[in-house]
Amino acid sequence: MTLPMTVPDPSLPARVRIHEVGPRDGLQNEKTAVPTEVKAEFIRRLVDAGLSTVETTSFVHPHWVPQLADAEKLFPLVNGLPARLPVLVPNERGLDRALSLGAREIAVFASATESFAKANLNRTVDEALAMFEPVVVRAVEAGLKVRGYLSMCFGDPWEGAVPVEQVVRVTRALADMGCDELSLGDTIGVATPGHVGRLLRELDEAGVPTSRLAVHFHDTYGQALANTLAALRHGVTTVDASAGGLGGCPYAKSATGNLATEDLVWMLDGLGIETGVDLAALTATSVWMAEQLGRPSPSRTVRALSHKE
Amino acid sequence: MTLPMTVPDPSLPARVRIHEVGPRDGLQNEKTAVPTEVKAEFIRRLVDAGLSTVETTSFVHPHWVPQLADAEKLFPLVNGLPARLPVLVPNERGLDRALSLGAREIAVFASATESFAKANLNRTVDEALAMFEPVVVRAVEAGLKVRGYLSMCFGDPWEGAVPVEQVVRVTRALADMGCDELSLGDTIGVATPGHVGRLLRELDEAGVPTSRLAVHFHDTYGQALANTLAALRHGVTTVDASAGGLGGCPYAKSATGNLATEDLVWMLDGLGIETGVDLAALTATSVWMAEQLGRPSPSRTVRALSHKE
Repeated sequence: MTLPMTVPDPSLPARVRIHEVGPRDGLQNEKTAVPTEVKAEFIRRLVDAGLSTVETTSFVHPHWVPQLADAEKLFPLVNGLPARLPVLVPNERGLDRALSLGAREIAVFASATESFAKANLNRTVDEALAMFEPVVVRAVEAGLKVRGYLSMCFGDPWEGAVPVEQVVRVTRALADMGCDELSLGDTIGVATPGHVGRLLRELDEAGVPTSRLAVHFHDTYGQALANTLAALRHGVTTVDASAGGLGGCPYAKSATGNLATEDLVWMLDGLGIETGVDLAALTATSVWMAEQLGRPSPSRTVRALSHKE
Repeated sequence: MTLPMTVPDPSLPARVRIHEVGPRDGLQNEKTAVPTEVKAEFIRRLVDAGLSTVETTSFVHPHWVPQLADAEKLFPLVNGLPARLPVLVPNERGLDRALSLGAREIAVFASATESFAKANLNRTVDEALAMFEPVVVRAVEAGLKVRGYLSMCFGDPWEGAVPVEQVVRVTRALADMGCDELSLGDTIGVATPGHVGRLLRELDEAGVPTSRLAVHFHDTYGQALANTLAALRHGVTTVDASAGGLGGCPYAKSATGNLATEDLVWMLDGLGIETGVDLAALTATSVWMAEQLGRPSPSRTVRALSHKE
């Protein structure tokens, strides 16, 4: 592959870690549950393609996310692969399940807004934080890495624009609780680059250093990659993306489209930023997964590269 | 509309002029020619939505682009609208037709690569420049503004990555010929932000100031908006886009998808960069045009906003 041409930008990081969310975030909204063995094969292929972190599944109650009800069956099939394999846990019961299977990284899922905390967790923001605190504390004590997801960091379908100080408050609470990494989610995809920069600056001033942050953009309005570029310029080196652009959010209007990992890798390859990912192998994986799901990948890079083949 | 939240970035321009290419670039590949009155109405609605420059049609021979064979009928229907209405002219015959109808701005269409010059114009790069020279000189003498398009500025489907110095040479030739504005086209959508920055810097060093440049990105690999952000950071204030993301290029593999004007305006609105464009009116126009064409708009912003309505 001779393209993209590599032209580094010295103001950007030399290396980015991609936090691949496809198997969890990408598949949790599928109408028909994907067979466990297909999920395991998807994860194996992603790791083979060079992804060093693959969020594997969720230990949420099967009533809420039946698509991931096979977490106990899936995790042992992939545990031991040469990659970080975080799993989502919503509460202490979920943590118990994750610990019993030998998970070494977990993630909790908080909201920056009251409306989404209510819709997604049926709690206030502070009640949700109180629910997560013992989970995070116990996980840290058990030697696990803990990621805190923060949804609706830029806009909310019910509340509109979300004040930056509100996001800073909840992010700090998650950081103080013991989360190693905080993933700032633009769940409905409305952020623009100046907004991204402001949030990162204000978090830094509030004592949450950029080195602990990840960004999680959605392409609902086509802004995900431009926002990622803005975040890289502010020193962020962990970027969430979903292979083939799989996924969205069932509780958020218009939350179509995680940033596609391939579109991200195309940009990072062009910028000479190391990711360890082989774009051709990753694209082949997404083409394979699209065949399993019976519909084309929404990733523009996957479509362009697979069209050429 | 309360979103996007406006957060300016002082390192970016305060105002951007959008060069809307939908009626020409967007419709030139339609399998079924769009009725002239629909095109005229499309242009009227675009101007009503606040677009100050709308590329209207092309005076190319109807044999090559039958979709725009109605240029003589269309132009008088929209001439007089309160906007700049450039028209594409391939040669002196086209210039004569444009002049006879009272066009006040024209554009010529050159290539940075030999392969595309051959495929699109059946000429070498220098033969094509020689063909354009009398067109540009006569147009300037007649008091017209002249834009020079340059295709394949970053990559070429036959040649791969395009050397920056090659692009600089042809851009300088067009500038020296008398083109007021040079539009740098990423016809196959392969550019990444560092590449964009390098080309703009090298053009500046070669005596082609950024103030005379426009950028024309395609979303084939999802990079168009990130590349636009990189160009704005280098001081570019003229950006080409196509309402609803209409169009592509018939002679270039995978050249799907002009940057959608709505996705661009979403970002610029969020950055507080003035464009004069009313996003709601523009989106309504693209929804209307999609109905005329009988297929949904590829613009993510159009889909998200029209889904909400």
